[in-house]
Amino acid sequence: MIVELKKNATRDQIDLLENWLRDKGIRVTETQGEENVVLGLVGKAAKSIDEKMIESLEIVETTKSVKEPFKRANRKFHPEDSVIDINGVKIGGGNFAVIAGPCSVESPEQITEVAKAVQASGATLLRGGAFKPRTSPYDFQGMKAEGLELLELAKAETGMPLVTEIMNAAHLPLFENVEVLQVGARNMQNFELLKAVGRTNKTVLLKRGLANTLKELLMSAEYIMSEGNPNVILCERGIRTFETHTRNTLDLSAVPALKELSHLPVVIDPSHATGIARMVEPMAMAAAAAGADGLMIEVHNDPAHALCDGPQSLTPAQFDRVMKRVNLIREAMNADI
Amino acid sequence: MIVELKKNATRDQIDLLENWLRDKGIRVTETQGEENVVLGLVGKAAKSIDEKMIESLEIVETTKSVKEPFKRANRKFHPEDSVIDINGVKIGGGNFAVIAGPCSVESPEQITEVAKAVQASGATLLRGGAFKPRTSPYDFQGMKAEGLELLELAKAETGMPLVTEIMNAAHLPLFENVEVLQVGARNMQNFELLKAVGRTNKTVLLKRGLANTLKELLMSAEYIMSEGNPNVILCERGIRTFETHTRNTLDLSAVPALKELSHLPVVIDPSHATGIARMVEPMAMAAAAAGADGLMIEVHNDPAHALCDGPQSLTPAQFDRVMKRVNLIREAMNADI
Amino acid sequence: MIVELKKNATRDQIDLLENWLRDKGIRVTETQGEENVVLGLVGKAAKSIDEKMIESLEIVETTKSVKEPFKRANRKFHPEDSVIDINGVKIGGGNFAVIAGPCSVESPEQITEVAKAVQASGATLLRGGAFKPRTSPYDFQGMKAEGLELLELAKAETGMPLVTEIMNAAHLPLFENVEVLQVGARNMQNFELLKAVGRTNKTVLLKRGLANTLKELLMSAEYIMSEGNPNVILCERGIRTFETHTRNTLDLSAVPALKELSHLPVVIDPSHATGIARMVEPMAMAAAAAGADGLMIEVHNDPAHALCDGPQSLTPAQFDRVMKRVNLIREAMNADI
Amino acid sequence: MIVELKKNATRDQIDLLENWLRDKGIRVTETQGEENVVLGLVGKAAKSIDEKMIESLEIVETTKSVKEPFKRANRKFHPEDSVIDINGVKIGGGNFAVIAGPCSVESPEQITEVAKAVQASGATLLRGGAFKPRTSPYDFQGMKAEGLELLELAKAETGMPLVTEIMNAAHLPLFENVEVLQVGARNMQNFELLKAVGRTNKTVLLKRGLANTLKELLMSAEYIMSEGNPNVILCERGIRTFETHTRNTLDLSAVPALKELSHLPVVIDPSHATGIARMVEPMAMAAAAAGADGLMIEVHNDPAHALCDGPQSLTPAQFDRVMKRVNLIREAMNADI
Repeated sequence: MIVELKKNATRDQIDLLENWLRDKGIRVTETQGEENVVLGLVGKAAKSIDEKMIESLEIVETTKSVKEPFKRANRKFHPEDSVIDINGVKIGGGNFAVIAGPCSVESPEQITEVAKAVQASGATLLRGGAFKPRTSPYDFQGMKAEGLELLELAKAETGMPLVTEIMNAAHLPLFENVEVLQVGARNMQNFELLKAVGRTNKTVLLKRGLANTLKELLMSAEYIMSEGNPNVILCERGIRTFETHTRNTLDLSAVPALKELSHLPVVIDPSHATGIARMVEPMAMAAAAAGADGLMIEVHNDPAHALCDGPQSLTPAQFDRVMKRVNLIREAMNADI
Repeated sequence: MIVELKKNATRDQIDLLENWLRDKGIRVTETQGEENVVLGLVGKAAKSIDEKMIESLEIVETTKSVKEPFKRANRKFHPEDSVIDINGVKIGGGNFAVIAGPCSVESPEQITEVAKAVQASGATLLRGGAFKPRTSPYDFQGMKAEGLELLELAKAETGMPLVTEIMNAAHLPLFENVEVLQVGARNMQNFELLKAVGRTNKTVLLKRGLANTLKELLMSAEYIMSEGNPNVILCERGIRTFETHTRNTLDLSAVPALKELSHLPVVIDPSHATGIARMVEPMAMAAAAAGADGLMIEVHNDPAHALCDGPQSLTPAQFDRVMKRVNLIREAMNADI
Repeated sequence: MIVELKKNATRDQIDLLENWLRDKGIRVTETQGEENVVLGLVGKAAKSIDEKMIESLEIVETTKSVKEPFKRANRKFHPEDSVIDINGVKIGGGNFAVIAGPCSVESPEQITEVAKAVQASGATLLRGGAFKPRTSPYDFQGMKAEGLELLELAKAETGMPLVTEIMNAAHLPLFENVEVLQVGARNMQNFELLKAVGRTNKTVLLKRGLANTLKELLMSAEYIMSEGNPNVILCERGIRTFETHTRNTLDLSAVPALKELSHLPVVIDPSHATGIARMVEPMAMAAAAAGADGLMIEVHNDPAHALCDGPQSLTPAQFDRVMKRVNLIREAMNADI
Repeated sequence: MIVELKKNATRDQIDLLENWLRDKGIRVTETQGEENVVLGLVGKAAKSIDEKMIESLEIVETTKSVKEPFKRANRKFHPEDSVIDINGVKIGGGNFAVIAGPCSVESPEQITEVAKAVQASGATLLRGGAFKPRTSPYDFQGMKAEGLELLELAKAETGMPLVTEIMNAAHLPLFENVEVLQVGARNMQNFELLKAVGRTNKTVLLKRGLANTLKELLMSAEYIMSEGNPNVILCERGIRTFETHTRNTLDLSAVPALKELSHLPVVIDPSHATGIARMVEPMAMAAAAAGADGLMIEVHNDPAHALCDGPQSLTPAQFDRVMKRVNLIREAMNADI
């Protein structure tokens, strides 16, 4: 249930109501809207409470029941866009952020060189895989802990917050200096991992699974949020369909759909969605035009020799061009009509 | 096989070569490139010819064999974008065209009112269904011949060329005054219909089937073109996937993919792809940003009472806003970087 | 609406009721059940009739409204299995029939030899493509009219009724001596063709489209039946999914699903579904065990040199083994437990 | 690379060769075939070895390189069917085993009653969920450790080995008395979990992911096997397609396909694949006819009040009928022809 309070509700009145609800075993979230405070009531206990009674309280404007099984991720609970602040880099609510970097961290020179290049072109978050989920046990699995150290080195040089994938809750201590934990598509319904990252205070970039619906993506965000971590970024990276021309099929309608259903920021990953470097530019532009809050793009200083996913990586020069064209689209999006 | 001729090849020399090839049973297409003439050799007989021998001819620059099973639709045969001229309305090669109108023609007032409204907002081609493919035999099947007459009335008032669906080759005489024959998604592999419209001199708007690959779409274009009709517009309108939030999943990566594989114009239909009116604007903008040559959008003066597909139709006012925002994207696309 | 009459309703009473309904513009179907007559009321006029009033009539036992958009194909309209009789070969309601033959008719020797071989192994219907739907306009399109003549020759030798694909209503006169008109997967929603075959008195084998739901398949059957032709056989031949190991994914749950929703016979085509000859045997056995009413299997006397679909064709010896094993499964199905 | 040894190779000669290979950093597997020993050579070091040289050795019959990225799961490495022995219950190589029980363990009475009932009908392995993966964090997540204790109770009463899902490697100590660890569809590519169960000596039932290809399923089996655990059972439980009539689409062609590619046993789960209790019987029979090595079926003593997946659970009486009919199919499969 959502409880919209009156504009003139005082802090004391609000606390009194919240405490009373919590005493009944109800989990309560509080969101400061533009004009008034909105409470979200979650959990089984919330179902047993009398909506009419709540509505009759002096400080309550209206109540609304939420049919969707996702609550905290639901825009009805939190009508304004969530803005997530990652060490000063904001995303959501009109703040557009670009995450760039190589598929895999390979060496100090590689990651630092790429970091400086993408930062010069306007990227504000650095990605780089240290632990790599690979279909085959015999393929390169990433530099692991050593890769994380190299990412920290690149952060020290550039100041860019880090985005990197975590595959195992037991590895969390190694990720102490990582700002954004990425949960990959294959782990989108690894509920144990979702709960573990939900118990941290780090931002989580949650990628949509290959065959998961938007509702399931939001339910997975709910797993993280229900553990107390509100900082979730949703990422569409292509779904699996019958079409084999592109590696996956980028579902750009996910952008307006997710932004209608949820207040969380939505990022598009055109590199994994298409698997083809020359499609990254048109799909990045399309994503910006569809209203995405950001992009995640693979950039490598030597794609031909990348240890992983070379065919979809941009060179720094190609990335620079993409940023310039995406910026033009962003300006067009914000123009008055 | 593709035969690129030298810049200084004379008309007589070219004719001599073409006639010699045709005598051998080879079908020959000729395209005037920016600097030189390119010949395309199609058919079984073309396979038996000696590539080395052709290459040794004085007027031949190079030859190239085309592995893809589509020839005439292939960009290798025709390196420049095709520009299709529909009674003065151009599409392709930098010319962006918007097709708009109601799902079904319902009355003279409806179609004329909508036509005038969409024209005022910048649409240049009028769509309207007269023969409607419906999943159920008990649903409204369109006004048929009478609907075509009403479309002609709206054309008389506005001068807009007409785009409307044909479902049966036997109906072709009724479509005499229609400029663009639409072949719908369900008929994309109705090869008999493709051959029939290929024998006309009308432009064909070919919609991608719900579960058809891009290669299959191009092979269906090839069916039309191999009968002698080069004027084909490709249309992506969403594919069928596991996701049920939107009616179909719009595959926008089809735009750069098709434009790389083929020289034919590519149009996006965000109305059918999403089935949700409020998603038409972001998807139309994304399509423009992805490099589409045009859009096909459903507009109805009274969506709530439309006989067909009301939930996805825009009002004229909504359409006007979409056009303004799409134009801003188009300008951004053409800006220097 | 379905109207179940009492056991003792007389012919005169039934006629009186039917005529009264027809006068109101309602289309009426009559089915003789085991004990009583069931009427089906279809069309818009049927919606306006008062169910309570009908129920109050002396000869009426009960009425039931049918929510599904398919009526004539609906089991509620026709509780018993339909048994279709094709020149003495029965299918449905416990009658199992196997359709076998080559993908394409190639020569008099080929088709007659294959026909005799499959008949000896127990097939009762002969298939063979004369008009072939091919993705590419440059591929072999079948022997067309000449192919039909060769099929008739094989029928003259063996007495087997013929099953062959029709792609164009204008070809109907050529199919005069064909017993079963096949509508292929690509034409499942070619509504004009469905209506045309619905106006004949020939049995129609309707194949499920690559991306069509079971409900859509039944709606397409309804197109045929609503024109007056009740003799429709449904055929599952694999759907298009992300899996590329087999050509399509055979959806065997379609058998119990279709048989629950409809009274029409259901046939499985393991050859096209898998595209791999060595998978035909296990999938044919599985189809029989799932309760299918028949099979459609490609057999060629020289698969390695077949003009079409060789890799999925069985040799006559392989087909003989499949028949023996399928018969064992059929016996197990009918055993008491 | 696969190295087939001669029939007369002695143990000493084989050991000598294996040790020499292992000294070069090559991982070596040994399989006793019907007549001779077959060695499998895996890992990067195996690629650098000279195939010709190996072939020239006196005890070597032939060598074969394996292109597929899965090695240990590959039938080429292990031509005979693997037979897995679970506390005396065998599966694979002609041994058919049925795993039955409730979706969730709910109480000592429920699990013990169901266990006795399914055992009486012929099931030999008991399933029951203790840790339940649920799309929503607010849904019943299973009885967890307490559920495992109840399963052990039911095992004590019936002697049936246990099959239950593990979602987190950290829970492994709780599963000490569980014979078969199930890795669910959502965790099929949770590579960290695969490696952890690969380091145990328990049998692993690996379910195919909703959108995973057969090759990916085999690669996930390879993750388990490459850690040293050869006891993997593959389970097809339906894939996600556009069809919504059934919960998933059961891909029965997976049975012959997997058995051709791999030596591992293949089990079908018709309950999760269809999500509809009345479809379990026909699909179980079809699975047996397709050549599956076993079935996994949900049975509940009170489906209407099950805490999870009631609509797809059979009653013990329905399960008994399924077992009888499946046994008839199994007999037909084994009959001489």
